[in-house]
Amino acid sequence: MMITPESRLMTAGVALPQVARGLGNYEPYSIVGNQLMTSGQFPYLKGVLQYQGQLGAEHTVSEGYAACRLATLNAIAQLKQACGELTRIKQIYRLEGVLNVHESCFEHPKALDGASDFLLEIFGEAGRHSRMIWTNPVMPLNSLCLVYLFAELYPDDEQK
Amino acid sequence: MMITPESRLMTAGVALPQVARGLGNYEPYSIVGNQLMTSGQFPYLKGVLQYQGQLGAEHTVSEGYAACRLATLNAIAQLKQACGELTRIKQIYRLEGVLNVHESCFEHPKALDGASDFLLEIFGEAGRHSRMIWTNPVMPLNSLCLVYLFAELYPDDEQK
Amino acid sequence: MMITPESRLMTAGVALPQVARGLGNYEPYSIVGNQLMTSGQFPYLKGVLQYQGQLGAEHTVSEGYAACRLATLNAIAQLKQACGELTRIKQIYRLEGVLNVHESCFEHPKALDGASDFLLEIFGEAGRHSRMIWTNPVMPLNSLCLVYLFAELYPDDEQK
Repeated sequence: MMITPESRLMTAGVALPQVARGLGNYEPYSIVGNQLMTSGQFPYLKGVLQYQGQLGAEHTVSEGYAACRLATLNAIAQLKQACGELTRIKQIYRLEGVLNVHESCFEHPKALDGASDFLLEIFGEAGRHSRMIWTNPVMPLNSLCLVYLFAELYPDDEQK
Repeated sequence: MMITPESRLMTAGVALPQVARGLGNYEPYSIVGNQLMTSGQFPYLKGVLQYQGQLGAEHTVSEGYAACRLATLNAIAQLKQACGELTRIKQIYRLEGVLNVHESCFEHPKALDGASDFLLEIFGEAGRHSRMIWTNPVMPLNSLCLVYLFAELYPDDEQK
Repeated sequence: MMITPESRLMTAGVALPQVARGLGNYEPYSIVGNQLMTSGQFPYLKGVLQYQGQLGAEHTVSEGYAACRLATLNAIAQLKQACGELTRIKQIYRLEGVLNVHESCFEHPKALDGASDFLLEIFGEAGRHSRMIWTNPVMPLNSLCLVYLFAELYPDDEQK
């Protein structure tokens, strides 16, 4: 049996959530050439935002790690909706993460590893990515984090 | 008569402004392959910055909406200068918006809809985009917002 | 003798540093199609971070300029490692810069010119770029700035 992102999700005991509605008049993703990119993804669980406030204040680094992992799960659900099958993805080439971080805390790269580690867990080599990290003082819905994924798709006639 | 972004601007009674000078030693846009991307665009009217300060402090959400719309008008002027004709644009595939937002305000996605709505108004289906949203504590010129557009161009031999 | 980015670095008396380790479980760069993009680059000198704190507080604008130049030198070292030869780069088409800026200071675009000017100095016409600028309240390692570069590569059979 072929190992796929979907089978790894199953092995991890993680179900893809329903994709969330956006917060404005924009699309959940767009595609240009073979580049698929998502709009911002939040740490929703069954439609309820799980982490609000600041890293280093309301939330520990390990909670931030869990929040980034959960937002990435939501992002993967979005990729799945865009792609049909996650095997159409050749590479998750970029992760962009935004966190709200208290001025006394500099551990947000470790929190964002919750996203990076999960991508590698689910996509294997195809999950190896470069990344950008920001801190923002105000987040939509007061979310602790926002995750954006950028994926390269296989050409239609070259799918793995 | 063909409906174009230019004709929709005329119908809306909106003239494209002269493009603004950048704030440093960079280009107003760049093109890689068929991807055209602008540098940051401000809410200028006749060369004068219209909105400064914070959303939720100096400015209401509806003023923020107007500011994002105006910055997007300036961005479209930039695309026009880059393209010659806006019909060369196949898709505005990405909008990236930065706002300065007071800590008590979480309505910045609604303000950024001033950009999103305007793209759909002027480009129709070709204006459907994914988007990124940030808040920043300090903005160039103390501007309320900054807008960046990413557009896919038709290949030269395939223009609509 | 051909003028190359490498020869211009030599003329400028600047040696490329060893590339720095990332701060998490991500790659230092990724490539999609002919687009090469780096992860965040810091103002390291011989492995030691040189600029911490805020522009307009701990650091003047000219120090910020030097910090952005130094971070860009580190980014170029990263491009070199990715490319082998910097002549494989057709265009540095995008610079994205993040700074930590005191609320009383609006001169961060001038500081980021330390990156822009250096790209033009080392890459000539191929260094002409559009750019994005952000301010963030908390930076990894409390760095004054972060620089990201995006480069278009020549096709393998078309290298300059």
